[in-house]
Amino acid sequence: MSATKQIKIDEAEMQKAFESIGQVQNEIDQLNEQASEEILQVEQKFNKLRQPNYKKRSDLISKIPSFWISVFLNHPQLSTYLDQDDEAILQHLKRVDVEEHEDIKSGYRIKFTFDQNNYFDNDVLVKEFNINEASETTCKTTAIRWKNEAKNGSNKEGRKRSHDNDNSSFFSWFSNTNNPGADEFGEIIKDDIFVNPLQYYLAATTDEDENSVGENEEE
Amino acid sequence: MSATKQIKIDEAEMQKAFESIGQVQNEIDQLNEQASEEILQVEQKFNKLRQPNYKKRSDLISKIPSFWISVFLNHPQLSTYLDQDDEAILQHLKRVDVEEHEDIKSGYRIKFTFDQNNYFDNDVLVKEFNINEASETTCKTTAIRWKNEAKNGSNKEGRKRSHDNDNSSFFSWFSNTNNPGADEFGEIIKDDIFVNPLQYYLAATTDEDENSVGENEEE
Ligand SMILES: [Ca+2]
Ligand SMILES: [Ca+2]
Ligand SMILES: [Mg+2]
Ligand SMILES: [Mg+2]
Repeated sequence: MSATKQIKIDEAEMQKAFESIGQVQNEIDQLNEQASEEILQVEQKFNKLRQPNYKKRSDLISKIPSFWISVFLNHPQLSTYLDQDDEAILQHLKRVDVEEHEDIKSGYRIKFTFDQNNYFDNDVLVKEFNINEASETTCKTTAIRWKNEAKNGSNKEGRKRSHDNDNSSFFSWFSNTNNPGADEFGEIIKDDIFVNPLQYYLAATTDEDENSVGENEEE
Repeated sequence: MSATKQIKIDEAEMQKAFESIGQVQNEIDQLNEQASEEILQVEQKFNKLRQPNYKKRSDLISKIPSFWISVFLNHPQLSTYLDQDDEAILQHLKRVDVEEHEDIKSGYRIKFTFDQNNYFDNDVLVKEFNINEASETTCKTTAIRWKNEAKNGSNKEGRKRSHDNDNSSFFSWFSNTNNPGADEFGEIIKDDIFVNPLQYYLAATTDEDENSVGENEEE
C-alpha cells in the first residue's frame, strides 16, 4: 500500500474517532446536566424544610442582647472587616436572616433588622445577590437613611480597630455593589455563620467585662 | 420589683432562649445531614451511570496520538507544571482515567496508562486519594520503575520550559504525597479536564508542524 493511501486511512479512522468521542461526550454532558438538576431539587426541598426552623431561631436570637455583634467579633475572618463605629451601631442589630431565592440558583438576600437607634432610620437593611442564566451576579442594597453626617460619606475616616482591613467596615461592605460575584463577607455570612451562629456566639473567650462591645451590667 | 430580681428573671429567660435555640439548631443540623446524604446519593447514582461512557471515551481517545500531552499543554494552569522531559515522556501517555470511589466521599484515583517506552517499565501509574471519616486526606502512588538514572532522583535538574513553576514536573507531582488535601494538579484533572478533555485538545491554536510536541508526519 502506498504511504499516501495509509496516511489517508489513518486520517479517516482518526476523524471517525473524533466524531465518536463527540457523541460520547454529549451523553456525558447530558448526564451531568441531569445530575445538577437533581441536586438542585434536593437543595430546593431542604431550603423549604429549613424555613420554619430559621424563623424560630431568628425570633429566639432577637431576645439575646448583642448576639450578632458578638458573633461577628468572634469570627476570625469577619471580625477583621469591622471598625469601631461598627461596634457601636451593630449593638442594635437584632436579626440576621439569609433567604435563598426559591429556585436556589438565582441567588439570595441577607436581611439585617435593627432596633430603633440614633444612626439611621431604616428598620431593615437588605443586601440581595441575583445570578442570571449566564451566571453573572449583580447586587442591590437598601439605601441607608443616616441621621447625621457620620458614616454617610466615602471620605469618612472610621476609627480603626487593630487588625482590621484598611478602610473596611461593615457599612462600607454593605453599600458596595462593585464586586458581587466575589463577595467574601456575604459568603461567610451565608455559608458559614448562618449555618450555626450559636457556635460563634458561644466561642467568646474573653470575660464579658473585658469585652469592648459596649456597656455591660456590673456582675 | 428589686433590680436583683429583675436581673434574675432576665437571666432565666435568656437561659431558656439559649436552650431553645440549641434545640432548633439540632433540627437544622439534622436537616443539613439529610440534605448532604441525599445529594451524595445523587452523585453516587450518576457516577455509576457515567462509567460506560467514560470507558468508551477512554478507548476512543487511546487511538488519537499525543491526545493527552496536547490536552495538558493546552490547559493554562496545568501546562505550567510540566518540564521538557515531561513532554517527551508524556507522548507515551495513552489513557487518563479518573475513578471516584463508589461512595464518592472516600476519595478517588487517577490512572495514567502508558505505551511501551524507554523511560520506565510500568504500564499504569496510579495516584490515589483517600478521605477518612475525619475528612483527612492521604495519598498513595505507584512506585515508578525507571529504566535509567533520568528522572529518578530528587536532585534531577529538569530541563525547564519557559513559564513553568520552579522545579515542578508531572513526575515530581505524581510521586509527591506530602500535601494530599490540597492537590491542585489532581483536582484540575478530576474536576476540570476529565469532565471534557476534548475541548482542551481542540483548543490548540498553533499549527501542528509548529507544535513542540514531538514528531509529526509531513503534510
Ligand atoms: Ca437566625
Ligand atoms: Ca477518558
Ligand atoms: Mg426606625
Ligand atoms: Mg512496560
